[in-house]
Amino acid sequence: MAIAPTPPTGRPATDVGRLLASCPDRRGIVSALSTALAETGANIIRSDQHSTNPEGGDFFLRMEFHLDALAERRGVLEQRLEHVGRELDLDWRLTSADTRKRVAIFASRYDHCLLDLLWRWRTGELDMDLVGVVSNHLDRADDVAFFDVPYHHVAVTHETKQDAEQAQLDLLEGIDLVVLARYMQIFSGDFLRRVGAPVINIHHSFLPAFAGADPYTRAYERGVKLIGATAHYATEDLDEGPIIEQDTHRVSHADSPDELTRIGRDLERLVLARAVRWHLDDRVIVHGNRTIVF
Amino acid sequence: MAIAPTPPTGRPATDVGRLLASCPDRRGIVSALSTALAETGANIIRSDQHSTNPEGGDFFLRMEFHLDALAERRGVLEQRLEHVGRELDLDWRLTSADTRKRVAIFASRYDHCLLDLLWRWRTGELDMDLVGVVSNHLDRADDVAFFDVPYHHVAVTHETKQDAEQAQLDLLEGIDLVVLARYMQIFSGDFLRRVGAPVINIHHSFLPAFAGADPYTRAYERGVKLIGATAHYATEDLDEGPIIEQDTHRVSHADSPDELTRIGRDLERLVLARAVRWHLDDRVIVHGNRTIVF
Amino acid sequence: MAIAPTPPTGRPATDVGRLLASCPDRRGIVSALSTALAETGANIIRSDQHSTNPEGGDFFLRMEFHLDALAERRGVLEQRLEHVGRELDLDWRLTSADTRKRVAIFASRYDHCLLDLLWRWRTGELDMDLVGVVSNHLDRADDVAFFDVPYHHVAVTHETKQDAEQAQLDLLEGIDLVVLARYMQIFSGDFLRRVGAPVINIHHSFLPAFAGADPYTRAYERGVKLIGATAHYATEDLDEGPIIEQDTHRVSHADSPDELTRIGRDLERLVLARAVRWHLDDRVIVHGNRTIVF
Amino acid sequence: MAIAPTPPTGRPATDVGRLLASCPDRRGIVSALSTALAETGANIIRSDQHSTNPEGGDFFLRMEFHLDALAERRGVLEQRLEHVGRELDLDWRLTSADTRKRVAIFASRYDHCLLDLLWRWRTGELDMDLVGVVSNHLDRADDVAFFDVPYHHVAVTHETKQDAEQAQLDLLEGIDLVVLARYMQIFSGDFLRRVGAPVINIHHSFLPAFAGADPYTRAYERGVKLIGATAHYATEDLDEGPIIEQDTHRVSHADSPDELTRIGRDLERLVLARAVRWHLDDRVIVHGNRTIVF
Repeated sequence: MAIAPTPPTGRPATDVGRLLASCPDRRGIVSALSTALAETGANIIRSDQHSTNPEGGDFFLRMEFHLDALAERRGVLEQRLEHVGRELDLDWRLTSADTRKRVAIFASRYDHCLLDLLWRWRTGELDMDLVGVVSNHLDRADDVAFFDVPYHHVAVTHETKQDAEQAQLDLLEGIDLVVLARYMQIFSGDFLRRVGAPVINIHHSFLPAFAGADPYTRAYERGVKLIGATAHYATEDLDEGPIIEQDTHRVSHADSPDELTRIGRDLERLVLARAVRWHLDDRVIVHGNRTIVF
Repeated sequence: MAIAPTPPTGRPATDVGRLLASCPDRRGIVSALSTALAETGANIIRSDQHSTNPEGGDFFLRMEFHLDALAERRGVLEQRLEHVGRELDLDWRLTSADTRKRVAIFASRYDHCLLDLLWRWRTGELDMDLVGVVSNHLDRADDVAFFDVPYHHVAVTHETKQDAEQAQLDLLEGIDLVVLARYMQIFSGDFLRRVGAPVINIHHSFLPAFAGADPYTRAYERGVKLIGATAHYATEDLDEGPIIEQDTHRVSHADSPDELTRIGRDLERLVLARAVRWHLDDRVIVHGNRTIVF
Repeated sequence: MAIAPTPPTGRPATDVGRLLASCPDRRGIVSALSTALAETGANIIRSDQHSTNPEGGDFFLRMEFHLDALAERRGVLEQRLEHVGRELDLDWRLTSADTRKRVAIFASRYDHCLLDLLWRWRTGELDMDLVGVVSNHLDRADDVAFFDVPYHHVAVTHETKQDAEQAQLDLLEGIDLVVLARYMQIFSGDFLRRVGAPVINIHHSFLPAFAGADPYTRAYERGVKLIGATAHYATEDLDEGPIIEQDTHRVSHADSPDELTRIGRDLERLVLARAVRWHLDDRVIVHGNRTIVF
Repeated sequence: MAIAPTPPTGRPATDVGRLLASCPDRRGIVSALSTALAETGANIIRSDQHSTNPEGGDFFLRMEFHLDALAERRGVLEQRLEHVGRELDLDWRLTSADTRKRVAIFASRYDHCLLDLLWRWRTGELDMDLVGVVSNHLDRADDVAFFDVPYHHVAVTHETKQDAEQAQLDLLEGIDLVVLARYMQIFSGDFLRRVGAPVINIHHSFLPAFAGADPYTRAYERGVKLIGATAHYATEDLDEGPIIEQDTHRVSHADSPDELTRIGRDLERLVLARAVRWHLDDRVIVHGNRTIVF
């Protein structure tokens, strides 16, 4: 895919790095990592950590730091982290805030999540290279063109699904993130294994309630007093992947399924946008089927 | 049961009546009912209505009105409503706001919902005659005694369940409402059929998610980002009854099941209290497995 | 102004009327009005009422009804209401749901509220004839053109303000509602008196906190833990008009004024959209400096 | 004051310490402090930091750690911190989680915040030594006695205020925290200077809106669509102190000032309890007129 020109309004983040690390919890992890950063000349801007259990549990850490000439000194820092990492049995990765992730959005006919993401990208809220939009319909082509983003139409039918997924995979070469903005097709396990990037989906219910089809109708029938939306990483088990973000909104007996759909659109937009933003900022760590959001 | 002395702070509502009515939707219902009220001398204070479908659906109405000397003129009003009701195929009932409902609370060991209801009753927020508290434990006897409310200990074991339920039914003679304030026993279908009054339960999850046992642990394991509580009418199908009220609160990966339990206590207290309050004010109508809350 | 073509997705509401009425509270109002509707053949779909005080207060009512061939029978209904109204000292108006209000949006440089309204109009959530967008800048011309809505650039400087307001008034001939979507100019009292239509403004704070300039910076400096947005009718007293809708969102010490601005954009979009929607549906009644939202 | 017996349900926190530190932001702070902890044998359980500006701003840090035999090794740790602190120009303090703060609650006639705090203390949610309740009325004596907490009646009139404050100060000897649970008297600046402990107040509005008297009435008159509550540190400037926590709840035109008062009680209870809990856990740092809540 050709990359859409990133708007100039994105947050500048030169020389800002992010260290994500996990290991068995033990004494001295923060000391070792913060010392490696300090010795390289970095100033920690933000630090978050979580331990599932200080006694024998798993430890997770995210440090955001400023380091002058990060690009040049990255090698030195990585050597130090490599050294520290061996001692701590550390699983770590280092990202640079100014290396934007390459993102593809999948959409079908609904416009609300798609337009919202396009607007947030244009306004600089989502710091990403938007590689393009893939859709099984033509309906949204003009909307996407207005934002100067490439639009790829890949029709999907029951018969052509396998070929369609191959065509999609070809388009996704080198991608860092796939966002499903109410994309109404279910990917095969094969696709998810081969895509080589996390896939964020928005489901229009408060999972695990109303997984599967028609959640608004089922919410109406069950008579719930709040509806919700859930952004999660897509896995082969539909609507069962690690949850990144959720929110709910009050409804009443007077709200028909159509009204729930209308109210839910706002929830879906907000919840998906937050999840994508946090992922882009390397704030989400998957641990089993749960997420740690720093 | 002996009735606990109702605190003097309860909201006075002399000469305030409430008309609840339902019928097949058609033209002229509001006109007929409001005219019957006006001709009897009543002034409508508040009116709510809901139609599942103006074309052939079900119509529901609640009118709160002031009528001087309501007790004396109630007979006249009922005659007029009887007359109107026949024409409209109306299912209706009339309550007087100053006829307090007789309520029994069931509790086990947890104190949070029970104490909250006792406090709200004492402060006048819950306009009811609190007939007593029934518990399968002795733990809460002192708390209840402090509020000068009768406490009835009915032990329940697997073997004695049938006898225990009979003892409970004997205590509930003439009761208008049973509130389960985290009562940790499951009633038999026989009990629910014979109790002769609605039973409101609080479940510590956002139903239909995490119905059944240990919802906070399961919420933790699923990694949800909000927890919830649900007040509903108890039916034989556990956690499947009509929902009256729900609410949610944000949590994070850092919250252990114990933290979820702590946060959830506040949700449970608020949600149960609202549901009970609305029921006492005749604001809840059950329609199939859904509720209309006016 | 030329009218932009209304999208076909708007909610159909043929033969649906809305009666708004207010008068001194007394007995028999609902009866009289619902009987006038029933006698004309109308079926009340939804009814809301409010009394500031059943004893000598002010009474407000909104009835939404279905009446076959409303356009033809409207005259008959109005005669009946006229008759009833005289007896009750009634202030009333009747609107037809399929008579869309003519709306003009004012914007400056910010795109978030404007784009959100345009999208909701396109999707049919806002049932209005969008007559055009007026702006003191050219920045948003392409956005508005994409939605096929007329764009009117009226530059405003301290010196030209009077002429600019006259030019704006000329554009607003026959308008039913003006929406200020973060329009960064203050209207003169003369303009507000002459515009002849309600003006809805969005203020980026939880009024009455942080009225006036730079609310996000001041919220940061005061260290509040929630920020808000307020939609209100514009009056000569800046940020003092009747409030239609408000909402808040949690923030923390870590959120800079820029972050508050970002979080606030979502609040502003949602709050303004709800207020406009409710106004379009004739659900908002102004009473002194407060609103009744049915 | 005699100390009330702390309930046995309080969270155990043996050998858990908390380090709070602030200094001008610079490189190496986290490294120096975490190394001092690691070298003493501590395992960091939780770490939070905030910088007002990485370039020349102020840096704040809170580290919660486990250290076997903390009481014995505290001296060693303090020496190391002393050493590090000099280099970094560090303002720091060390607390031990099992050293409960000595807390006094002030109340007047309202019971809601007082009872809620007493219940949370009894249930172990508030990890504190509750030294007693001071009140200018006798109304709550029985409630407090039920929880086996000392009750001190200090009447306050305009004439006796100075003497009353002296009597209160005598009672507060050695206290760590004063909580005003809707205490309806205003302290003199002299009292606040001499009390020698932070004072947390709950104000029944969303500050800075409706500071001062009668916020619910004024909220009603202004027609706001949400009401709020604010917990803050008391300062001489009434309702102007650093905000610890706030929350809001939706209301409508139909809610009278009495209804707002009722709804607000729940907000006040929750907001005050959160603020007290966070303070007890050393999670709140005051910086100018703002708070950092870790």
